[in-house]
Amino acid sequence: MNTDIKKLLEGVRDGSVSVEEAVLGIKTAPFKELGFAKVDLHRKARQGAAEVVYGAGKTPEQIVSIARAMINAGQERVLVTRLSEEAAEEVKKSIPIRYFKEARIGLTGGFPEPDGIGRIIVATGGTSDIPVAEEAAVTAEALGSEVVRLYDVGVAGLHRLLSHLDDIMSASVIIAIAGMEGALASVIGGLADCPVIAVPTSVGYGASFEGLSALLSMLNSCASGVGVVNIDNGFGAGYLANMINHMASK
Amino acid sequence: MNTDIKKLLEGVRDGSVSVEEAVLGIKTAPFKELGFAKVDLHRKARQGAAEVVYGAGKTPEQIVSIARAMINAGQERVLVTRLSEEAAEEVKKSIPIRYFKEARIGLTGGFPEPDGIGRIIVATGGTSDIPVAEEAAVTAEALGSEVVRLYDVGVAGLHRLLSHLDDIMSASVIIAIAGMEGALASVIGGLADCPVIAVPTSVGYGASFEGLSALLSMLNSCASGVGVVNIDNGFGAGYLANMINHMASK
Amino acid sequence: MNTDIKKLLEGVRDGSVSVEEAVLGIKTAPFKELGFAKVDLHRKARQGAAEVVYGAGKTPEQIVSIARAMINAGQERVLVTRLSEEAAEEVKKSIPIRYFKEARIGLTGGFPEPDGIGRIIVATGGTSDIPVAEEAAVTAEALGSEVVRLYDVGVAGLHRLLSHLDDIMSASVIIAIAGMEGALASVIGGLADCPVIAVPTSVGYGASFEGLSALLSMLNSCASGVGVVNIDNGFGAGYLANMINHMASK
Amino acid sequence: MNTDIKKLLEGVRDGSVSVEEAVLGIKTAPFKELGFAKVDLHRKARQGAAEVVYGAGKTPEQIVSIARAMINAGQERVLVTRLSEEAAEEVKKSIPIRYFKEARIGLTGGFPEPDGIGRIIVATGGTSDIPVAEEAAVTAEALGSEVVRLYDVGVAGLHRLLSHLDDIMSASVIIAIAGMEGALASVIGGLADCPVIAVPTSVGYGASFEGLSALLSMLNSCASGVGVVNIDNGFGAGYLANMINHMASK
Amino acid sequence: MNTDIKKLLEGVRDGSVSVEEAVLGIKTAPFKELGFAKVDLHRKARQGAAEVVYGAGKTPEQIVSIARAMINAGQERVLVTRLSEEAAEEVKKSIPIRYFKEARIGLTGGFPEPDGIGRIIVATGGTSDIPVAEEAAVTAEALGSEVVRLYDVGVAGLHRLLSHLDDIMSASVIIAIAGMEGALASVIGGLADCPVIAVPTSVGYGASFEGLSALLSMLNSCASGVGVVNIDNGFGAGYLANMINHMASK
Amino acid sequence: MNTDIKKLLEGVRDGSVSVEEAVLGIKTAPFKELGFAKVDLHRKARQGAAEVVYGAGKTPEQIVSIARAMINAGQERVLVTRLSEEAAEEVKKSIPIRYFKEARIGLTGGFPEPDGIGRIIVATGGTSDIPVAEEAAVTAEALGSEVVRLYDVGVAGLHRLLSHLDDIMSASVIIAIAGMEGALASVIGGLADCPVIAVPTSVGYGASFEGLSALLSMLNSCASGVGVVNIDNGFGAGYLANMINHMASK
Amino acid sequence: MNTDIKKLLEGVRDGSVSVEEAVLGIKTAPFKELGFAKVDLHRKARQGAAEVVYGAGKTPEQIVSIARAMINAGQERVLVTRLSEEAAEEVKKSIPIRYFKEARIGLTGGFPEPDGIGRIIVATGGTSDIPVAEEAAVTAEALGSEVVRLYDVGVAGLHRLLSHLDDIMSASVIIAIAGMEGALASVIGGLADCPVIAVPTSVGYGASFEGLSALLSMLNSCASGVGVVNIDNGFGAGYLANMINHMASK
Amino acid sequence: MNTDIKKLLEGVRDGSVSVEEAVLGIKTAPFKELGFAKVDLHRKARQGAAEVVYGAGKTPEQIVSIARAMINAGQERVLVTRLSEEAAEEVKKSIPIRYFKEARIGLTGGFPEPDGIGRIIVATGGTSDIPVAEEAAVTAEALGSEVVRLYDVGVAGLHRLLSHLDDIMSASVIIAIAGMEGALASVIGGLADCPVIAVPTSVGYGASFEGLSALLSMLNSCASGVGVVNIDNGFGAGYLANMINHMASK
Repeated sequence: MNTDIKKLLEGVRDGSVSVEEAVLGIKTAPFKELGFAKVDLHRKARQGAAEVVYGAGKTPEQIVSIARAMINAGQERVLVTRLSEEAAEEVKKSIPIRYFKEARIGLTGGFPEPDGIGRIIVATGGTSDIPVAEEAAVTAEALGSEVVRLYDVGVAGLHRLLSHLDDIMSASVIIAIAGMEGALASVIGGLADCPVIAVPTSVGYGASFEGLSALLSMLNSCASGVGVVNIDNGFGAGYLANMINHMASK
Repeated sequence: MNTDIKKLLEGVRDGSVSVEEAVLGIKTAPFKELGFAKVDLHRKARQGAAEVVYGAGKTPEQIVSIARAMINAGQERVLVTRLSEEAAEEVKKSIPIRYFKEARIGLTGGFPEPDGIGRIIVATGGTSDIPVAEEAAVTAEALGSEVVRLYDVGVAGLHRLLSHLDDIMSASVIIAIAGMEGALASVIGGLADCPVIAVPTSVGYGASFEGLSALLSMLNSCASGVGVVNIDNGFGAGYLANMINHMASK
Repeated sequence: MNTDIKKLLEGVRDGSVSVEEAVLGIKTAPFKELGFAKVDLHRKARQGAAEVVYGAGKTPEQIVSIARAMINAGQERVLVTRLSEEAAEEVKKSIPIRYFKEARIGLTGGFPEPDGIGRIIVATGGTSDIPVAEEAAVTAEALGSEVVRLYDVGVAGLHRLLSHLDDIMSASVIIAIAGMEGALASVIGGLADCPVIAVPTSVGYGASFEGLSALLSMLNSCASGVGVVNIDNGFGAGYLANMINHMASK
Repeated sequence: MNTDIKKLLEGVRDGSVSVEEAVLGIKTAPFKELGFAKVDLHRKARQGAAEVVYGAGKTPEQIVSIARAMINAGQERVLVTRLSEEAAEEVKKSIPIRYFKEARIGLTGGFPEPDGIGRIIVATGGTSDIPVAEEAAVTAEALGSEVVRLYDVGVAGLHRLLSHLDDIMSASVIIAIAGMEGALASVIGGLADCPVIAVPTSVGYGASFEGLSALLSMLNSCASGVGVVNIDNGFGAGYLANMINHMASK
Repeated sequence: MNTDIKKLLEGVRDGSVSVEEAVLGIKTAPFKELGFAKVDLHRKARQGAAEVVYGAGKTPEQIVSIARAMINAGQERVLVTRLSEEAAEEVKKSIPIRYFKEARIGLTGGFPEPDGIGRIIVATGGTSDIPVAEEAAVTAEALGSEVVRLYDVGVAGLHRLLSHLDDIMSASVIIAIAGMEGALASVIGGLADCPVIAVPTSVGYGASFEGLSALLSMLNSCASGVGVVNIDNGFGAGYLANMINHMASK
Repeated sequence: MNTDIKKLLEGVRDGSVSVEEAVLGIKTAPFKELGFAKVDLHRKARQGAAEVVYGAGKTPEQIVSIARAMINAGQERVLVTRLSEEAAEEVKKSIPIRYFKEARIGLTGGFPEPDGIGRIIVATGGTSDIPVAEEAAVTAEALGSEVVRLYDVGVAGLHRLLSHLDDIMSASVIIAIAGMEGALASVIGGLADCPVIAVPTSVGYGASFEGLSALLSMLNSCASGVGVVNIDNGFGAGYLANMINHMASK
Repeated sequence: MNTDIKKLLEGVRDGSVSVEEAVLGIKTAPFKELGFAKVDLHRKARQGAAEVVYGAGKTPEQIVSIARAMINAGQERVLVTRLSEEAAEEVKKSIPIRYFKEARIGLTGGFPEPDGIGRIIVATGGTSDIPVAEEAAVTAEALGSEVVRLYDVGVAGLHRLLSHLDDIMSASVIIAIAGMEGALASVIGGLADCPVIAVPTSVGYGASFEGLSALLSMLNSCASGVGVVNIDNGFGAGYLANMINHMASK
Repeated sequence: MNTDIKKLLEGVRDGSVSVEEAVLGIKTAPFKELGFAKVDLHRKARQGAAEVVYGAGKTPEQIVSIARAMINAGQERVLVTRLSEEAAEEVKKSIPIRYFKEARIGLTGGFPEPDGIGRIIVATGGTSDIPVAEEAAVTAEALGSEVVRLYDVGVAGLHRLLSHLDDIMSASVIIAIAGMEGALASVIGGLADCPVIAVPTSVGYGASFEGLSALLSMLNSCASGVGVVNIDNGFGAGYLANMINHMASK
């Protein structure tokens, strides 16, 4: 950078560069070499996997046009999250997608072969948490992870969870999804010896305050090794879990 | 009441009662038969047990004077809660009290023989919750209940809790005390088949928001049969648990 | 558990069971035994009463299938909570249920004979709290408790509450249900000498913040012997009250 | 105003007023006749009573200097609120004040003869609320009202409150002061037929959140005729109550 | 009361009263003389005015039946608040009511002659606050107060408010109604020398948090003589203002 | 003012003015010269630009009548904010307005020539923030500023923002609009050397709590030179930015 | 960038660059030209003015060392904010600073000549807000703005504010500083026709919640042209106001 | 478990163990085995590393006794977190610990050789976040990870962060620690392609609400691959990061 600015100032001294041009040049110099390429190159190189489109608030036409551009650019698979059933019907007319209704996810290109370190467990406290869990599970599968689903293993019936101790003990990452009091994350965090990603859900009523109760519980987990994502953020959990599950192959 | 008011109005008609007197009479008639006796008579009759003085914000002199009045009135034992060690030293000079340091409770007259239906379990998630637990335990003991203490059985090390399943299964009431994420109440509520009184504590930091996290968790417990008291309210839990433990003898 | 495992060990001793088979049996035993059987055995033994299905978020088909399984397994009565009128109509086509519209509860098998220690009072501050109260009352009745309803006895007209002092004084448990400022729990807690279960409701407007005001009031009750459940959680209150009302028969 | 601005514009047309002067003139015209006199004249005229100095955050020297200026200006009495005991000692060296320790109020000139419509009742839920109550009571007395104190009449012991029904029924204004669940305001509001000023206090612990619980309760009071002031704002309540108590003499 | 209990105990001594009867008698004695009459007698005696029915959550049939009972009992006028236009149409078929659409109030019996000390000013910050203001105004008029409306005089255009200083200065009570930042209460409180009742409204967006912003502002008003009611509680403000306006005639 | 009051008092002394008249006169004197003219005159004089009508909660008829009055009074352009598409259709039948659908703004009179110091940059974190951004942009343009739009330059893809450094460095004011974590304001505030107006949006889900997360982020920005407006308040940001952009011409 | 990456890839093709080197190269390419110079060069060039050191949490030694480095680098003046009196004493031993006690600011090099467009008004609601105001005022002065102080002009005594209308009308920027209900910003925003920077302060008690009340008020201001900074952030307001005041000279 | 229970069963088969002894053994087995042994065995086997003692609220004597027991049990190193300097001095008298003052951590046995997949970057927004960062860094180092510290790289000076792109791009896990608006997590999350653990700190003032602002920001991060831990929870972040960094070696 020094050289660029030095030249610029010499130009000012020589009269070949006006002061106004130099002022603008000096202001923008530190950043001017930046460009667009990073994200795409990196992701593709590493994962040979899915590019993600956040579907909420986009029309089917917009989704089709973005996805088509990605496919044309050589992208093998495209993952569309928060995609309503109606929008999926529209998108299907233009692009062959497979639609996962509970997960609200559309996927082109099919699932890749799982190639991570191990398996990701997706566990839920109740049956109402399943849509969030499916978003997490399908996301992780579309990115190349093997996923095991343990649904409805909430702590009010501890035996259900404990009867799956083998799965819990052999997981590489566990996604613990729960609403209401969100205790599942702490109990799993205390049992497992792998990273746990906790997802509070807005399931509950009254003083659950649309997920706040579960969120605070999970942040205050007395178990070590627990990281928390936003309320109902199944995609974020699946994405982070897959990232961790692919650590070694990096 | 009708008769009273009728007489009053007849008095007005006759001139023997002024209008002003009648107005005041009519206003106060519905409530004028009320008195002071209820609380003391009831409690004493039922429990032969401790009368409670809330010690916080009272000087040792005030406490001594209240307690002495109760003793003189025939009260067998007096329980002083939220009593600091310094205040206890002062009180001891005038009245023979036994002081429970962790529970911050002073007691005259000693513990009664336990005579409830069964045993009250007082369980805590961690060692920092013990002062609240001792307040609950000593309260229940002073009111005539047998108490079993299970401390430091938080859900991050589930085996500690599960190794006491016999105690949990045979309790008449369980007081579950925890800070941080407060999951203990849900796990115990799922295991036990007796009433569970949940006490959130202000133990924790950051997003525990001085007990709010545990409070919301406990209110949202997915287990049935759980009632919640205020943050750090060991006395309230011990009092309610003892009340339930004496149900049958009523 | 003792019997089952004892048999297994006797089989090992006798040679009729191989060590490997026994290892597998024992591995799953603790949780199978601690497992599904627990709840049913305990509840059934004690109450001869209702098993509960949380109806919210379940299709009529799912409810029918769960209830039918329970009935086939010998369950005398099944209680379905948070059941909408439409869903109840659907369920009725397959299973004979009695539907309680205000309580949003469906019940098969009819009410059992009340067999608790005494009577449960269900009191509300206003008429808008009645749906929550009915959920509590029907739940307690379906589990075998006698219930007395005292509706619309809020503290703004204290005489309404005080005119029912007989009921209050003779209750075994009182469920105090109120929205707005939730003062009913404190006033009843000060009058009664039995456990009080407080249910804040989302009734109110403005700074009631959908039940938060009543919830905080009830948690901060200056009366002793009050436990709180979640906002609008009539079922939880009815369940806990019934549990307390059956203490002695345990 | 029209005339003024018209003249100004004619001046601009004539050249006798510059544009710059006119712009400034037009900008300030609507408000230029305002002055300082209002507050003092009004208050003095109406009440012949105390002028108020908010003592918190002021040095004893500042307080002395302000009070002296008021006295020199003919003010009969000066009320200094939120005055610490130490500061009061300092102020006393320069000005003869009477200091009310619990109320944290200093007063010069003594109490006036009460001359309102009736009496103001100052009621508290507990003994810890008394400092706030004294601030309210001394304020109202210094402004010329007769005050009756009913302390420690909280709703957990309803008989204490009901035994003072005569006072409650004959009050012109009632100040209801309570922390914790703040139910006192609703109960008094339901009994009395005069305006009730509710003062939440920061007394309590845990989920009282330093007065928030009582504040929300009082705002949501199901009784009509209740107005609320800020947490611990005894002065505000006393000032407003006195104002109402002097309505008729206006 | 002493006599009653004394007789009861003598009965026990004589054997004419069983112990069980005496226990029940002693429990209920303090309150047994209470009844229903208070509210109606008091209000009617004092105000010759409207009885209030809270219409929200009541069916037209329920409203008609309550109102008819009141009218039959000699009540001159009945005020129904929170009455939707549809419900009002239904009620009109049975009882001749006048319906105030913006105020959502129905009134039988017409307005009484105003007979308070002075006039109540109802002021709003904006036009969106008018429904709440009308609820306050019609309530106060139906109870016998004269009302002056000052709408849309928010502090962002201070001249609008100041041009009505005459009204403000001559009011007996002012109701200041505002959403958003709720500054109107402070500005009026600083100008007026009469009680101000502040009503926060849920008008606003974003960080107004449905009235919380205005509520906190009004509670923290730096002006003295301001009492606050619940968000959007026009009825409460009108009722309290009328009560104050009738102080002298009590 | 002195003169006025002096005259009044002389009148009282002479008997030509009654005491009652004088009291009223003294009360209202300080403010009586106020009027309505300020706002219109000032704004028009300075900006030759648009007068604003807040369209939300107004009927098309009301909007037409207000706008027509302004136009008749010589107002060149009128800006109607928060105008729904349906309302715009209605208004168009009476007044020729141009409607900006995303901005929900209607404008009569067309855009003025930009005449500020420089250019206003309107930047958004995502595409969902665009409606708020358009409200800001169209507002600033209607008031006479040149606007450059930089949409979807959120910090998760920093290169998108950095590739527009030239624009950022040469702006006179920047409006940074973002939901979710609202980091855009801090990053732009750290890069730019001009005032930044931050607008949190309600875009996001879960723990974004309808804009609270972005609002707190922006208020806590570690960058200097950032001022914040209300959640989703595009109009407020555009208005303030335009005001700053016209500083020099004042 | 294209060129760099192209060369890198050609190197890979030629074998002169290893794949590992190329991967690292591609990853870092977009940003590698960045450096440290921006902030210093820009600020100095534009303002000839003060560089800022945030003093809180820094030892006097650290402050001296940072300031000395700046001075050695040719910086004319250095502004140290949040500097305690004790720390200032220490710093003075090494560097000649002028210390502003109320503002908690230390300054080397003295104030520059004011050279902005106009004057900045710093107004406060009460005397307790003055420390925040002084931080704002000294900051703006040290950066080259002329400042006028209007302290204690809160809206409860509107005449105090209105008597300074000339100042308000002729300001280039106004900083409105207030705690409690924060209404000052709205009232000034409604009077003035220049940008208003609102600073909520933590002054107040009870439901002011340490500045939250004033913060929400200011964000919800019904006046246009108001931007808000963090609670007690006098420095931020002074910095932003100065930035706006120097707009034209940019 | 298999081996132990297998032996027991073989004993039964052989007749050397009675069925009753076996029943007792098996009853306690599942939790003894699931029990205390689990954590140690797993951790030790994998990491040859540190066992953790939470020091807060423990006396030096308690810490010494726990640590000594661990050491005697063969534990190579013991990590004591939240250890005050005074307590550390006391502990040192009995056990040779190395004390890290900023991290508030004591360590026996020294650091192990780093053996994870790669390096953990610990980045902070400001210098005030360093204590939390050191807690994270020392924790990760004590557990066997290599750590690189990037302190004071907050987003208000983006060039500081961008000049370390090499480190960011080559990390295996990044811990992003920031107070105030917490934007660091989003910016790093957008740049890096590895898991990011976000730690909000309580650094800030006013509306940072002791870390709430940063916490919400991080939960709402628009970047993918970010998990959040509790406010100021450096230990939790270091522990989780190390766990992820050792994924492949599992």
